[in-house]
Amino acid sequence: MLAIYADEAVIRHVMAFEAALAHAEARHGVIDEASALAIEQTCATLDVDLAELAEEVALAGTLAIPVVARLKSALDPAVAGSVHKGATSQDIADSVMMLQARQGAALLRADIDRISDALARVANDQAGTAAIGRTLLQDALPIGFGLRVAQWQANIAEAGSRLRQDVESYACLQFGGPAGTRAGLGGKGDMISRDMAEILGLPDSAPWHSRRIGPAAIASSLGIVIGALGKFARDLALLSQNSIGEAFEPMVAGRGGSSAMAHKRNPTGCQVALAAAYRAPGLVSAIIGALSQEEERGLGGWQAEGPALSELFLIAAGSADALATVAEGLEVDRDAITRNLTVANLGDDIGESEKIVRHLIEYARKG
Amino acid sequence: MLAIYADEAVIRHVMAFEAALAHAEARHGVIDEASALAIEQTCATLDVDLAELAEEVALAGTLAIPVVARLKSALDPAVAGSVHKGATSQDIADSVMMLQARQGAALLRADIDRISDALARVANDQAGTAAIGRTLLQDALPIGFGLRVAQWQANIAEAGSRLRQDVESYACLQFGGPAGTRAGLGGKGDMISRDMAEILGLPDSAPWHSRRIGPAAIASSLGIVIGALGKFARDLALLSQNSIGEAFEPMVAGRGGSSAMAHKRNPTGCQVALAAAYRAPGLVSAIIGALSQEEERGLGGWQAEGPALSELFLIAAGSADALATVAEGLEVDRDAITRNLTVANLGDDIGESEKIVRHLIEYARKG
Amino acid sequence: MLAIYADEAVIRHVMAFEAALAHAEARHGVIDEASALAIEQTCATLDVDLAELAEEVALAGTLAIPVVARLKSALDPAVAGSVHKGATSQDIADSVMMLQARQGAALLRADIDRISDALARVANDQAGTAAIGRTLLQDALPIGFGLRVAQWQANIAEAGSRLRQDVESYACLQFGGPAGTRAGLGGKGDMISRDMAEILGLPDSAPWHSRRIGPAAIASSLGIVIGALGKFARDLALLSQNSIGEAFEPMVAGRGGSSAMAHKRNPTGCQVALAAAYRAPGLVSAIIGALSQEEERGLGGWQAEGPALSELFLIAAGSADALATVAEGLEVDRDAITRNLTVANLGDDIGESEKIVRHLIEYARKG
Amino acid sequence: MLAIYADEAVIRHVMAFEAALAHAEARHGVIDEASALAIEQTCATLDVDLAELAEEVALAGTLAIPVVARLKSALDPAVAGSVHKGATSQDIADSVMMLQARQGAALLRADIDRISDALARVANDQAGTAAIGRTLLQDALPIGFGLRVAQWQANIAEAGSRLRQDVESYACLQFGGPAGTRAGLGGKGDMISRDMAEILGLPDSAPWHSRRIGPAAIASSLGIVIGALGKFARDLALLSQNSIGEAFEPMVAGRGGSSAMAHKRNPTGCQVALAAAYRAPGLVSAIIGALSQEEERGLGGWQAEGPALSELFLIAAGSADALATVAEGLEVDRDAITRNLTVANLGDDIGESEKIVRHLIEYARKG
Repeated sequence: MLAIYADEAVIRHVMAFEAALAHAEARHGVIDEASALAIEQTCATLDVDLAELAEEVALAGTLAIPVVARLKSALDPAVAGSVHKGATSQDIADSVMMLQARQGAALLRADIDRISDALARVANDQAGTAAIGRTLLQDALPIGFGLRVAQWQANIAEAGSRLRQDVESYACLQFGGPAGTRAGLGGKGDMISRDMAEILGLPDSAPWHSRRIGPAAIASSLGIVIGALGKFARDLALLSQNSIGEAFEPMVAGRGGSSAMAHKRNPTGCQVALAAAYRAPGLVSAIIGALSQEEERGLGGWQAEGPALSELFLIAAGSADALATVAEGLEVDRDAITRNLTVANLGDDIGESEKIVRHLIEYARKG
Repeated sequence: MLAIYADEAVIRHVMAFEAALAHAEARHGVIDEASALAIEQTCATLDVDLAELAEEVALAGTLAIPVVARLKSALDPAVAGSVHKGATSQDIADSVMMLQARQGAALLRADIDRISDALARVANDQAGTAAIGRTLLQDALPIGFGLRVAQWQANIAEAGSRLRQDVESYACLQFGGPAGTRAGLGGKGDMISRDMAEILGLPDSAPWHSRRIGPAAIASSLGIVIGALGKFARDLALLSQNSIGEAFEPMVAGRGGSSAMAHKRNPTGCQVALAAAYRAPGLVSAIIGALSQEEERGLGGWQAEGPALSELFLIAAGSADALATVAEGLEVDRDAITRNLTVANLGDDIGESEKIVRHLIEYARKG
Repeated sequence: MLAIYADEAVIRHVMAFEAALAHAEARHGVIDEASALAIEQTCATLDVDLAELAEEVALAGTLAIPVVARLKSALDPAVAGSVHKGATSQDIADSVMMLQARQGAALLRADIDRISDALARVANDQAGTAAIGRTLLQDALPIGFGLRVAQWQANIAEAGSRLRQDVESYACLQFGGPAGTRAGLGGKGDMISRDMAEILGLPDSAPWHSRRIGPAAIASSLGIVIGALGKFARDLALLSQNSIGEAFEPMVAGRGGSSAMAHKRNPTGCQVALAAAYRAPGLVSAIIGALSQEEERGLGGWQAEGPALSELFLIAAGSADALATVAEGLEVDRDAITRNLTVANLGDDIGESEKIVRHLIEYARKG
Repeated sequence: MLAIYADEAVIRHVMAFEAALAHAEARHGVIDEASALAIEQTCATLDVDLAELAEEVALAGTLAIPVVARLKSALDPAVAGSVHKGATSQDIADSVMMLQARQGAALLRADIDRISDALARVANDQAGTAAIGRTLLQDALPIGFGLRVAQWQANIAEAGSRLRQDVESYACLQFGGPAGTRAGLGGKGDMISRDMAEILGLPDSAPWHSRRIGPAAIASSLGIVIGALGKFARDLALLSQNSIGEAFEPMVAGRGGSSAMAHKRNPTGCQVALAAAYRAPGLVSAIIGALSQEEERGLGGWQAEGPALSELFLIAAGSADALATVAEGLEVDRDAITRNLTVANLGDDIGESEKIVRHLIEYARKG
C-alpha cells in the first residue's frame, strides 16, 4: 500500500493521465497526432527528480502544476502548448486519487479474502464446540465457538463487499476542465472523456469535481472495513487474556515481545488492527465534513480529502495484513473453552449455532 | 421525524415485536395458541404511562426490560411466561432501530425527491445561462448556471439513492436471543425469525447483534446525505451574498429575520442545513468507532449507536425539509448573473454545460 | 443536568439577560429608569407558553426572536422600544450558553468530587495489595491494586480541574450588539457590559461572538472528563469479567439486570460511562470543526455549537452520576486479586506503588 | 516541524533517554558508574541505519525495542545488562512524544507570534476604517475593519496561549517501568525520575502511562489553534472574493497560480490553513477516543495517539507558517471597503470598534 501511495506512483499516474488526454484529444482532432505522439513518448520516459519536485509542490499547493510544467519544458515548445489542453489540476488529482483507490481496494481485497477463508475454516471446525458467550463483558449463555468466528468472518466479508461496490461505483475518471464544463474542446469533451476512461481503466463519468460523494463513500466504507477488522481484533484480544485463554494469535518471530517482560506474548496483530480502528472514525469524519465544499472547487475541503483517504487505505492495509497472518495461524484452545464453560455453569445448549454458522459462511461467500 | 423517534412510537414497535414473536412462536409450537392470542391482544391495547416509565428506563439502562415487565404484569400469570420467549432486549432494540430507520428513510426520501425535482427544473431552465464559475472562492471561467444546479441535484439524488440501498440491505430483523444462538426454540428459531420478519415488514437476517455494519452503513449514508444537502446550502449562501446576489432562498413568513436588523434577509434554510452538516461527521464517527464492540454484545459501544443514529435522522430531516422549501421557491437573478460574468471579463464560453446538465438530470432520475 | 438544559431554564436566562440589560442601560442613561423598571418586572413575572413557543422557534431558527417579541408585546408600546436595545440574538444565545455551562460544570464537579473522594479511600486501603498489572490486555508485572485506583482518581480529578479552569476562563458574558461593535449605546457599551456581567454573575469580556475558543475549550475539556471517567469504567468492566473478578460495581436495585438472563450482574454504571465515552469525541469534533465559522456570525457553524455542547454536558452528567454510585460502593475482592497474582507467577514486587499512590492522592487533592 | 518528527530525531531522543536513565541510575547506585559512562558515550555516538531499522520497527510494533537492542549489541555484554534498567518501551515512547511536543510548540509559537504582531499592526491601522460587518453571510451593520482583524488576532493569540499552558502542564517525563511501579530500582525510582527529568529538560511527574490527559489536552489545544488559524483564513478568503475584494494574501512567487487559469490569484495560504482546519477535528477526536484505554497500557488506543498527535503538529505548523507570510503581507483595499459600505447603505456608525480593538490587542499581548 505504501508503494501505491508513493510519490513515484503519483507521478506515473499523472503521466498516464496526460498521455491518455493527448491520445484522446488527437483522436478527436483537438490536438494534432504528431504532438500527441511526442507527449505520449515523453510521458513514458520522463524522469522526475523527487527531491527537487518536493519544494515546488509545497509552494504550489498541488502536485499537478510543477509536474505538468516539467513535462512541458521537456517537450519542443511547439508541442508543449498541446499538453494538458482543456484539463485542470483537479482533473489530475481526482483521477489519480481514484486510480490509487482501485489499486488499494484490490490489495485490500486479497488480505480480506485470506482472512475470510481462514476464519471460515475455523468457524466450520468449531461450529459445535460449546463455549460461554459473553455480553456486556459478562458470561451470558453458551454459544458454538465457531459462531463467534463466523460472525467475525461475515462481518469482514460484508464490509469488504461494500467497499468493493463503492469503489466500483465511485472510483471514476474526473475530466471537466477548469470550471467543469469541458470548454475549449470543440464539443468533443464527452468523447474525449470516454476514451481517456478506457485507456486509464476507469469508468467514465460526468464531471464530479463539485460532487464529493465518491471520496466520502469510499472513505466510510474503508472506515467500516477497519471497524470490522477491529471487531475481530477486539474479541481475540479479550479471548487471549491470561484468565480466559480461549484463542491466540500465532507466534511470529520478532513480534509481540516486550522490551522489559520476556514472558509476555502480546497480541500485536490485534494491536495494529485496534490502533487503526481508533484512528479511522476521525479520518472518515474529515472527509464527510468536506462534502459541503464551495462551488466549482472548494477551498481547503477538497485539499483535505486526499491525505485522509490515503491514510485510511494505509491503516486499513496495515490492519488487514496483520490480521491475515493472525487468522491463518489462529490458535484455539478447546480445553480452555470447555473449562470456562464449565465454570460458568450455565449448561451447554448452543441452540442453532451450527445452522447459523453454515448460513453465515454461505452469506460471506456470496459477498 | 420527531414522531418516528418519539417514545410512544418506540413502545408501539416494542409491542409489535412481542406480538409478532408470540404469533410466530405459536405457529411453530413453541408457545400455545391461546397464550399467543392473549399476548397479541394485550400488545395491541396496553396503555403505558410514559412519565412513570422514564425513571425505570433510566435505571435499567434499556427500554425493553421495563416495557416487557409491564406487558407481563398486564397478563394472566400463566400466560406471562410465554412473553419474550427466546428473545433478549437487544433483539427488540435493534429491530426497533431498524423499523425506525425504514420509516425515517421513507420520510427523508419524500423531501429529497421534492428537492431533486425542483432543482431539475431550475437546472433545465438555466442550463444555457452563462455565469461565472468559481474555484477556490475566486472567479474561474464561465459555466452554465444550470450546470451548478444540476450538480447539486445529482449530488443529493445520488446520496439519497445510496441511503436507500443501505436501508434496504441493512435494516433487517434482529432475532438471536440472549447469546445470539436462537436457543430454547426447539430448533425452530430460523422459521420463527422468517415469520416475524414478514409480520413486521423487515427483511429476515441471521442474527447480526455482533456485526454492526448495518448501523454504521446507514449512519455514514445519512452523513453523506446531510453533506450533499450542505453543499447545496453552502453554494446558495455564497450566491446570495449581497455583493453577488445570483440566487436566493424564497421569503418565508417568520423566518430569516433578525432580532436587531430588520433589513436582513438571512438564508435560514441554508443555516439549518449547514448546522446539520457541521454536526453530522462527528455523529457518524461515533457509530463507526463503535464497530469494534465486544463479543456477543458490547459494553457502551452498542448503547452509543441508538442516540447517534436517531440524531442523524433528525438533523437530516430538518435539513431536507428546510431545503425542500428553499429548492421549490429558489429565486435566480439572471441580471446579477450576467453582471457578475461581465465584470469577470473572462468571456462567455460555457463549453458543454448544457450537455452535461442533460446527462446529470438523466443520471439523477435513474437513481 | 436535564433541568439546566430545559426550555424553562433557557427562558428564565433570557429574561435575566434582558432585565440586566435594561437595568444597566438605565444606569448609564441609555434608556429611562421607568422603562427599565417595567422591563425588569415583566421579565420576572412573564409566563411563556412553551408549546406555543416551540413552533415559532423552529421557524425563526433562534429562541431569542420570539421570546423577545413576547416580552415586547407584554409591555406598554412606549416601553417596548427600550427592550433589547443595542443587543442581538447572539448576545443572548451565547450568554445563556455560558450561564448553563457554569451551572453544568458546578453540578459535574459535585459528582467528580464524590468519585475522587471514594476512589482515594480505596486507593489508600489497597495501596499495598499486590495484584497483577496488565498491559496490552496481558499479565505484565505486579502492582499495588491501589495504584491502579489512584491513577483512575488522579485522572478524573485532573480532568475535572482542567474543565473548571476552562469554564472559569471562557464562560463569560457576550455583549456586542448586531455586528459586535456595541453601537447605539452612546459610547457606554463597555460600562453596560461590565454591569450586566456583574448582575448575571458572569465575568465581563470583550465581545467574543467571532472568537469561538470558549465553546471549543469547554467542549474539549468535557470530552476529556468523559474520557477519564470512561477509563475508570473500562478498567472496572475488565476487572469484573467472570474469569477475573477483582472488582465490581455495587448492586443497585433495578439496575444491571437482563431481560433474559437472571444470573447476570451487568456493569451498568460502566456501560453508561462507556457509552458516553464512545459518543463524546464526535461531539467535541463538531465544535472544533465550527471554529472557522464566517465573519461576524457564522452560518451553520455557530448554530451547531449549542446542541453539541448541551449533549456533552448531559452525557458527562450521566456518566459522572452513574460512576459516583459505583465508586462509593466499589467492591474489591482481595482473594481474587491474590489468586490471579499467584497464577501469573510473576512474583509480588510492587515497587514504589505505595509511594506513588500517596503522591497521586496528594496531586488530585491540589487539583 | 518535519525535522522534529523525523526518524533521526526520534532516535536521538531515545538515545538521550537511555543516557539520562543510565546517568541517573548510576548516581543512585542502581548501576555502576563505569557502565553508565559507557552507555552515555555509546548513546552519543551510535549510528543507526534507518532503512535497516524500519522493517524491525514494523514487526515489533514499537521503535524502542529494536533501538535498545542495537544499543545493547553495540556495548560490551557486561555493560549491556545495565541498559534500559527498570524502564519499558512506553517510558521511552511517551517521553519522546513529549520532547517533540515541546519542540513543536516552540516552533509553532514563533509563527503565532509573527501572525499576532502582524495582525495587531493592521488592526491598529484600520481600527477606525468603517466597513460593512457581515453576519450569516449577509451585510449586517458597520464595523471598524480593524475590529475584525483584532478578533482574528486575539483568537489566535488566545489559542496559542492555551496550547502553551497545556504543553507546560502536560509535556512531562514518563518513567514508571513495565507496570508503572518503578520496581527494581531499590526504592530510588522517584529520585531517578527527578534527575532524568532535569537532564532531559522535562518536568518530572508521577507515572502517567495510564492517565492519557496529556496527549488529549495538547491535541485539543492544537485543534483549537488550527481552528483559530482557520477562522482568519476563512474570513480572508471571503474578503478576497472578486465581488468583495476588501483584503488579499500577498503575491508569493510560485504560489497561488492555476494550472489552467493564468488570471487567477488563489488564496493558497488560506487553502493550506483551511485544509488543516478540515482535518484537525477528526484527529483530535481520535486521541480523545483513546482516553478510555485499558489498564496499565492500552491495546490500540495508546498506539493511536502518536500518529494523530504528530499529524496535528505537522498540519498546525503548515497552517501557521503559511498564515505568517499572509499576515505579514496582508493587503487591505480601503477603497473597496468604502465602496461595499456605501452600497450596503447602512450608515457608518462603527460604535466602540476602536475601543474594543485597543482592548483586544492589549488582551492578546498579555497572553
